[in-house]
Amino acid sequence: MKIKILKPLLVKIFKKYGLSTNHAFISANALINAELVGAYGHGLSRIKMYCDRIRKKVINPKPKIKIKKISQSISYIDANNSIGFVAAEIGINKAIENAKKTGIGLVAVKNSGHYGLSGYYAEKAVKENLISMIYTNAPPAVAPHGALKSLFGTNPICFGAPTGKKIPFILDTSISMINRGKIRVAARNNQKIPEGVALDKFGKPTTDAKKALQGIQLPMASFRGSGLAWMVDILSGVLTGGNHAGRVKDPFDDFSGPQNIGHLFITFKTNLFVKNYNKRIKDNIKTIKRLPKIKGIKEIMYPGQNKYKRFIVNSKKEIKISEIVRKDLEILKN
Amino acid sequence: MKIKILKPLLVKIFKKYGLSTNHAFISANALINAELVGAYGHGLSRIKMYCDRIRKKVINPKPKIKIKKISQSISYIDANNSIGFVAAEIGINKAIENAKKTGIGLVAVKNSGHYGLSGYYAEKAVKENLISMIYTNAPPAVAPHGALKSLFGTNPICFGAPTGKKIPFILDTSISMINRGKIRVAARNNQKIPEGVALDKFGKPTTDAKKALQGIQLPMASFRGSGLAWMVDILSGVLTGGNHAGRVKDPFDDFSGPQNIGHLFITFKTNLFVKNYNKRIKDNIKTIKRLPKIKGIKEIMYPGQNKYKRFIVNSKKEIKISEIVRKDLEILKN
Repeated sequence: MKIKILKPLLVKIFKKYGLSTNHAFISANALINAELVGAYGHGLSRIKMYCDRIRKKVINPKPKIKIKKISQSISYIDANNSIGFVAAEIGINKAIENAKKTGIGLVAVKNSGHYGLSGYYAEKAVKENLISMIYTNAPPAVAPHGALKSLFGTNPICFGAPTGKKIPFILDTSISMINRGKIRVAARNNQKIPEGVALDKFGKPTTDAKKALQGIQLPMASFRGSGLAWMVDILSGVLTGGNHAGRVKDPFDDFSGPQNIGHLFITFKTNLFVKNYNKRIKDNIKTIKRLPKIKGIKEIMYPGQNKYKRFIVNSKKEIKISEIVRKDLEILKN
Repeated sequence: MKIKILKPLLVKIFKKYGLSTNHAFISANALINAELVGAYGHGLSRIKMYCDRIRKKVINPKPKIKIKKISQSISYIDANNSIGFVAAEIGINKAIENAKKTGIGLVAVKNSGHYGLSGYYAEKAVKENLISMIYTNAPPAVAPHGALKSLFGTNPICFGAPTGKKIPFILDTSISMINRGKIRVAARNNQKIPEGVALDKFGKPTTDAKKALQGIQLPMASFRGSGLAWMVDILSGVLTGGNHAGRVKDPFDDFSGPQNIGHLFITFKTNLFVKNYNKRIKDNIKTIKRLPKIKGIKEIMYPGQNKYKRFIVNSKKEIKISEIVRKDLEILKN
C-alpha cells in the first residue's frame, strides 16, 4: 500500500477510535516509520492491539497530559494513559527544548504505554543536533540472573548521536537475546535455538525450542545483561513513577488496566565541551571503518546505519501489508 | 599486609614519585578499595605501572587541574594528565555538587588516565543519595563488530543507584566478556582464562592469557556489545576532548605520551519525580528477590551486592600481597 494512502487510513482509524487529529498523525507516523525501518513487530501488526486497548478503556484517547516543570532542564510528564506514541513524542520534544535552552534535558514520563521504537525518538533529537539516551521498560520477557521466572521486559537501551553526516548513530538494543516469536517459530518447525538464549523449566540451558517455551528466556551476556535490564527498570520505572518490577501489563493479553509504562529521556548538546564535535565524530567513525575486516564483511557499520538504509529503500516502495494486517485494517476502518 | 600499614606505604611511594599528600591518599584509597572488592586487576598489580608512567613523565604528578563551569549543572575538567584517580575524584565530586544544586550534574573530564573502577565513583554518588551514570574509555581491547583488530577499550558501563538500604545498586560492567585486568593478572600468574572470551592475534579462540593480551577480546553479546562499546567511546572520548577511536595508549606498554582518557559523569537526584523513591526501590528489589530461583541459587543478587559483601569480609582481614607486588613495593619505596 502506498504511504500516501496508508497514512490517511491509519489517521482515520485512530480518529474513529477517539484520538485527536494531531495524536492520530503522531501515532500513524510512528507505525509507518517502524514498517519503513523493517521493525515489523513495532509496526502495523500492533494497530489492532492499540485500538482494542482504546475500546477497552485501558488507553485514554483523550488524555489530559500534564507537563510539570521541575527546572529549566528537568520536566515531569503525566501522560494520563495516552497512547505511548503521544507521550513519547511530547517527552522527547520537551527534552529537546530543555537541552537547547540549558545544554541538558532530563524528562521523565509516567502513565504511558508501549511507544514503539526508542530509536525513532533518538532520531528526533539527532535532527536537533543533540545526543540522547532513552530508557523504557516493558512487560516481562526475560528472567533476572538466577531467577526461574521472567520479570524484566526487553528493556531497550537507546543512544543517539549526530555523526556530522546524514545517517545518525542510533543504538537501540533490546537486552534480550532473542524474541519469543522466533522461539515459537523454531518450535513449530522443530528447529533448534542458539545456545545461551533460554533455559528449560528446570533452569538448565537448552537449545530445544519447545523446552525453551516452557522455560525462560535469558538476557544477553548473562549477569551483565540482567544488570542492564534492571538498570533500565530503575531508570524508566522506579524513578519515574511508572510500573516496574514486572508489573507492566502485556498490551496484547492483559486488558485489566493501563500499562503505566515509564520513559526517561536524557538529551544534551554535542558542543558543550569541544567545539569541533562534528569533526571528531567523523574522524571516529572513519577510523573504525578503516579497520581490517573479518572475511566476508564488506563494511563495518555503526548502529543505525543498516536501519537507515532500509528506511531509504523502503520509503521508495509501497508498504507490504500482510493478510492479517489487511483484515485488521478492514475491520478497524469500518 | 594490614591496611594501616599498607596505606601509609602506598602514600609514601606516591609522594616519593611527586604526588601531593592529598593526591597520594586519593590514589592509595582507590588501589586499596580495588583489593578489598576483589578487583585485583585494578589494585596493587598496577602501582608499578603508575610509578613508571610518572617517572617517564606521561603522568603529571603535579597537575594544574582546570575546572570550567559551563552552567550550574555542567562542568568541564582538564585534568592536565594527572593520575586518573585524582581526575575522577574531582570529576565525581563536581558532578555530585552540581546535582545537589540543580537536580542534575553533567561533568566531562579530559587529559586523564586510567582511574580504576567506575563503581568506586558511583558509590560516592550513592552516598550522597544520587543516581549516577559513568563512562570512560580505555586502550584497545575489543574488536568492533566485523573488524579483525581491537579498537574499543573494555569501556565499562556504570550505573549506581541508592537502594534505601546500606548496600548500593552498583552495575559496573565491562562490555568485554572478561575484564582486561583479570587477563593481565592471569598472564602474570601463568593461569588460563575461560573459553570464549578472547581470540589470539590470528583470530583463533584461546585460553592462554598471554596470547589473549596479544589478540582481541570479544565484546559481550556480539553486535549489541560492540554498539555499547562504541557508545561509550563517543560519550567519554569524542564528546569530552579525550582520546578515542583506539588512540588511548596502553598504560603498561606505551610510554610515548599521556593516555588522555576522557570520562563522563552524569548524576541526578532520586526524588526529582517521585517523592517515595526509597520505598519504590525497596519494593522493586524485594519483588525481584522473591522470584522462584534456579536450583543451586540461594539468593537473587542485585549488581554490587557481591562486591559489597567481599568488601566487608576483606576489610576485616589483611590484604594478601603477591610475590610480584611485594617486590614492586620493595623497589618502589626505596
